[in-house]
Amino acid sequence: MSSASAGVGRFPIVALDPQVDGGKYPVKAIEGEVITFSATCIREGHDKLAVELVIVSPSGKQTRQRMQQTNAGLDLWETKFQLLEVGSYRYRISAWDDEYATWLHTTKVKLAASVDEELMMLEGIRLLEKFAKNSSKFSVFTKILSDNKLTPLERLSKVETELTELAAANPLRNLETLSDEVEIRCERKLAGSGKWYEFFPRSEGAHQKPDGSWVSGNFKTAVQSLERVREMGFNVLYLPPIHPIGKTFRKGKNNTLNASDTDPGSPWAIGDATGGHDAIHPDLGTEKDFKDFVKSANKLGIEIAMDLALQASPDHPWVKSNPQWFTTRADGTIAYAENPPKKYQDIYPINFDNDLSGFLDEVYRILKKWIGLGVLIYRVDNPHTKTVEFWQKLISRINHEHPEVIFLAEAFTKPAMMHTLGKIGFQQSYSYFTWRNTKDELVDYLNELSHQSANFFRPNLWVNTPDILTEYLQFGGKPAFKVRATIAAMAGASWGMYSGFELYESVARPGSEENIDNEKYEYKARDFEAALKRDSSLAPRIRLLNEIRDRNPALQYQRNLETHYSDDSSVLVFSKRLEPKFNGGKDNTVIVVINTDPHSVRETMVHLKMQQLDLPHTFEVEDLITGERFEWGEHNFVRLDSFKEPAHILRVIR
Amino acid sequence: MSSASAGVGRFPIVALDPQVDGGKYPVKAIEGEVITFSATCIREGHDKLAVELVIVSPSGKQTRQRMQQTNAGLDLWETKFQLLEVGSYRYRISAWDDEYATWLHTTKVKLAASVDEELMMLEGIRLLEKFAKNSSKFSVFTKILSDNKLTPLERLSKVETELTELAAANPLRNLETLSDEVEIRCERKLAGSGKWYEFFPRSEGAHQKPDGSWVSGNFKTAVQSLERVREMGFNVLYLPPIHPIGKTFRKGKNNTLNASDTDPGSPWAIGDATGGHDAIHPDLGTEKDFKDFVKSANKLGIEIAMDLALQASPDHPWVKSNPQWFTTRADGTIAYAENPPKKYQDIYPINFDNDLSGFLDEVYRILKKWIGLGVLIYRVDNPHTKTVEFWQKLISRINHEHPEVIFLAEAFTKPAMMHTLGKIGFQQSYSYFTWRNTKDELVDYLNELSHQSANFFRPNLWVNTPDILTEYLQFGGKPAFKVRATIAAMAGASWGMYSGFELYESVARPGSEENIDNEKYEYKARDFEAALKRDSSLAPRIRLLNEIRDRNPALQYQRNLETHYSDDSSVLVFSKRLEPKFNGGKDNTVIVVINTDPHSVRETMVHLKMQQLDLPHTFEVEDLITGERFEWGEHNFVRLDSFKEPAHILRVIR
Repeated sequence: MSSASAGVGRFPIVALDPQVDGGKYPVKAIEGEVITFSATCIREGHDKLAVELVIVSPSGKQTRQRMQQTNAGLDLWETKFQLLEVGSYRYRISAWDDEYATWLHTTKVKLAASVDEELMMLEGIRLLEKFAKNSSKFSVFTKILSDNKLTPLERLSKVETELTELAAANPLRNLETLSDEVEIRCERKLAGSGKWYEFFPRSEGAHQKPDGSWVSGNFKTAVQSLERVREMGFNVLYLPPIHPIGKTFRKGKNNTLNASDTDPGSPWAIGDATGGHDAIHPDLGTEKDFKDFVKSANKLGIEIAMDLALQASPDHPWVKSNPQWFTTRADGTIAYAENPPKKYQDIYPINFDNDLSGFLDEVYRILKKWIGLGVLIYRVDNPHTKTVEFWQKLISRINHEHPEVIFLAEAFTKPAMMHTLGKIGFQQSYSYFTWRNTKDELVDYLNELSHQSANFFRPNLWVNTPDILTEYLQFGGKPAFKVRATIAAMAGASWGMYSGFELYESVARPGSEENIDNEKYEYKARDFEAALKRDSSLAPRIRLLNEIRDRNPALQYQRNLETHYSDDSSVLVFSKRLEPKFNGGKDNTVIVVINTDPHSVRETMVHLKMQQLDLPHTFEVEDLITGERFEWGEHNFVRLDSFKEPAHILRVIR
Repeated sequence: MSSASAGVGRFPIVALDPQVDGGKYPVKAIEGEVITFSATCIREGHDKLAVELVIVSPSGKQTRQRMQQTNAGLDLWETKFQLLEVGSYRYRISAWDDEYATWLHTTKVKLAASVDEELMMLEGIRLLEKFAKNSSKFSVFTKILSDNKLTPLERLSKVETELTELAAANPLRNLETLSDEVEIRCERKLAGSGKWYEFFPRSEGAHQKPDGSWVSGNFKTAVQSLERVREMGFNVLYLPPIHPIGKTFRKGKNNTLNASDTDPGSPWAIGDATGGHDAIHPDLGTEKDFKDFVKSANKLGIEIAMDLALQASPDHPWVKSNPQWFTTRADGTIAYAENPPKKYQDIYPINFDNDLSGFLDEVYRILKKWIGLGVLIYRVDNPHTKTVEFWQKLISRINHEHPEVIFLAEAFTKPAMMHTLGKIGFQQSYSYFTWRNTKDELVDYLNELSHQSANFFRPNLWVNTPDILTEYLQFGGKPAFKVRATIAAMAGASWGMYSGFELYESVARPGSEENIDNEKYEYKARDFEAALKRDSSLAPRIRLLNEIRDRNPALQYQRNLETHYSDDSSVLVFSKRLEPKFNGGKDNTVIVVINTDPHSVRETMVHLKMQQLDLPHTFEVEDLITGERFEWGEHNFVRLDSFKEPAHILRVIR
């Protein structure tokens, strides 16, 4: 920042969107996303201004696209552009003196008032001389404008249509002013749009022996579960840590302090004598088993996401090999995690200030290994308890070599930290969605996610996690599960679900917001098949939701979400749309109406923002849940019975 | 802007206030102004963060001031600092690891829980070793913390108070992170705080002869009027253009097209054969007369502001000497002003694109002349019809040599242009205040001016101008004049009034928003004395308002305005405060309650934001209009009779 003001330019371009922190960080986008570019540009006096988006694609293709003045009072210009390449786009805004438009406007007004008629012909001829330098096609118009046999009005009528087209194709760009350049990092689709499922591989295929002890599931048995995941339509499968688990201060069932010999321990207490973050838990199998598991998943169209939890059990090899990566206390011992006076002695947190570059190299080495084994997605455990600059450096280094690698931040923390992690590189983040359950909360939050924070923060809407079983799910009954899955899958470009949700698991450990007998500390053998057979599984609904997403590309993006109105305090209405020009010529508009109160039947009117969706006075919609068709318009009656069907998912038929 | 993300730093400082467009333009401030600095700073985990304002004054004095965390959920830190020097301040935000605070907090918690007691003493001693490198005073505390004869709790109690003080005086600033530097341009007080009056010097002392013709007033006769201006308490006197007036297409009375020989013409049609912007109209006197006039004003504590209207009459010397400064049409004639099909043939607008640097030199030369004659304030006519970059270059050049020169933008235009003119250098601007008359409009606009736009846009609240006589004044009767002057003088750090307002001149030219028989086109002989004598002058009220401003420094600033609540749709409530530490030890709090409806008597409750003003449960206030005293609290009854007295101006007695 300088002592003198920055030069304002001939035509001040005083605001640009999208941008993040004045250009300090790149704007986030994904393949296929449609971005609305806007700029506030001003000029003195009454002459016409032209404003263009000048965008260069990752492969170097430059596009110039005229922007429209959408709000004259605010000097606001806008245009939409679809990003189709992965990589760094760079855009600038160009503003220039539109001499042709000024001349045409002035001439029309003056001819209508019979003022300066011949003079305006002369002015037109003078302007054509400028155009002539760029193209020989203009000379014919000079002849017409000079033709004394015609009245000035006749001359103008004769040239207007063609000349306007030719001028647009050969713009003079007099006094062009260019804004600063802004980078948009366009990543592969899964970076911001995916359907996530989470399971503990040790539970998949685990079984209890007659003596009560357990046989762990492993990657070989877990392969069998992949079909179940595919069947529900998910395309990312996230695994909690698969590494050896420490024995020292291991946690027992329900997070108790004294584990028995048969308790498997929390996968997040990483490391024992056999290895750390680069090793696989012996119970789960070999590296080859893991590789086979990844390949089997990929064959089914499922990518594997691994956990990256940068902490160690006291038994982790790092404790001996690299004690400088931990905090040594004044008595020479290594500091365990604590929130005084509470102690978490099974975990040694990393100290990032002692040897940042050494630790960075180690994590880089570990990630390179897993990337080599086919894992391109990492769910980062509690990134907000590690230093932000570590993540910035790590992600930048990895993405520089592997731009396809995706990091999901499990940052359940305050907004400034969550947003900053997004800005410095995390491709996506868990969000507050889990705790936004009422209509008003959802309207506010979905708007924030889709608009205010969309340039730097990409949410993944998880309905539950091993750490979170909300009161809404605990006490909302089966309809609550249906409502939440429907909102997450339809409103979120990315959404996620932790195993057991489809079985309506809703009993919490008393006083906590977690499942009782939490899978973090023990094996779970769930009978998904039986639940399906007795019709008490949500799996078919989940499959339907994911199918609807697949068939309606508009649902796969976040920035295109718009909320609409209902007269009922619990009925949420939102839509997503892809215009034909951004969807191979086909319009795709989906309107979702949902009763967020799982204990009620609601009847209300729904009011749509017609202009935003470019809707005609009346139109037909198809309910993608029931197949029913309705005639809709701006104001529509709905009746939503949470006990039967809490939602309409309506595709507009145009 | 770079392809890689900017380095986020050890402790991310993700938002700073004040700043303008991410540091692109300096922040505006005036001498004596109290600025609230805020920063959003984050750190991982639970250790304590210290945040400081590091500010360097124009003379090079650096101050470090600890900021307080005012909103933990938003990671927001704040502190207030008063700018007392004129020139460029530069500030940064510093965030560092507050090891001492972390140790003290952890030790207290652990001792209370009887955990790690001796360990925390050892940790303390280790920390003291770090402090010892900066000061020898810490060694005594090491001894106490090592003293085995005392319990750890006794040791802590013995050191805490003194050690905390010493640690604060010798901070370690471990892992310090510094934000980018931001410039604050602190200008002399009149740049943002003044009491303005406008008169046409040709009218001051003008008189009509028996034959109906006029004898023009001049600088000698106008000297007599200075006492009237001083008497009302104004400290800036703005003169419409004082240059020769063109004869070609001169405008007659009431803006008619055919002026008679005796019509003096509009002062804004500048230039005739005798001279242009560097000349004085012969009727007004000589350069010496002008110089004497300026000196006389200065002696009374009044600065003279001149008009800078960059346009020419067809008779201006520039038309012959520098035709390139105008637009030549295709027929070889010079373009007059027009808004097709309307023509303004008495005015030739400047073309800024033909010879920007030549024209810049000429205006620079002209300003240097007037600056030499003692004029340091310029009211710029219609800056939004000239190119923004011209103003940026001109103001920067002039202010570089004469930082005391002030430019007031007469930019009655759209927000983006008004704001940009402020950002690129205009010290202040006319505002929309004139058209904000209802309570709701005023609450919104005063908040915008005092907070949202205060860093770059300094308003001058004019109640009228020769161009603006609003419907509110046309139809509100005398109470309307009293209401508007009271709001402008109390709410505006700068306010202004055009001659005749004090006489309640309220008749408009039909169909226009201007006074009938507008002074722009003719002489006005007003009898201010007679009006005073028959008690039909607002001058005594204006004098009182300006006196109240002078005696209550809080009223002289803009950023300190806060609006409060009333239950009535017309009763506006706002306050301004200077805390004792920023006002020589004396608190100055003024609460203004005003009935904005000039046709009514209103009774209502007024509700104050007590915490914002640091007010006790009950307190005494003195009405500075009537001298009455009241007992006030959070909720107060008021009765305001617009026909008698529409306002309370209450000084809080602490």
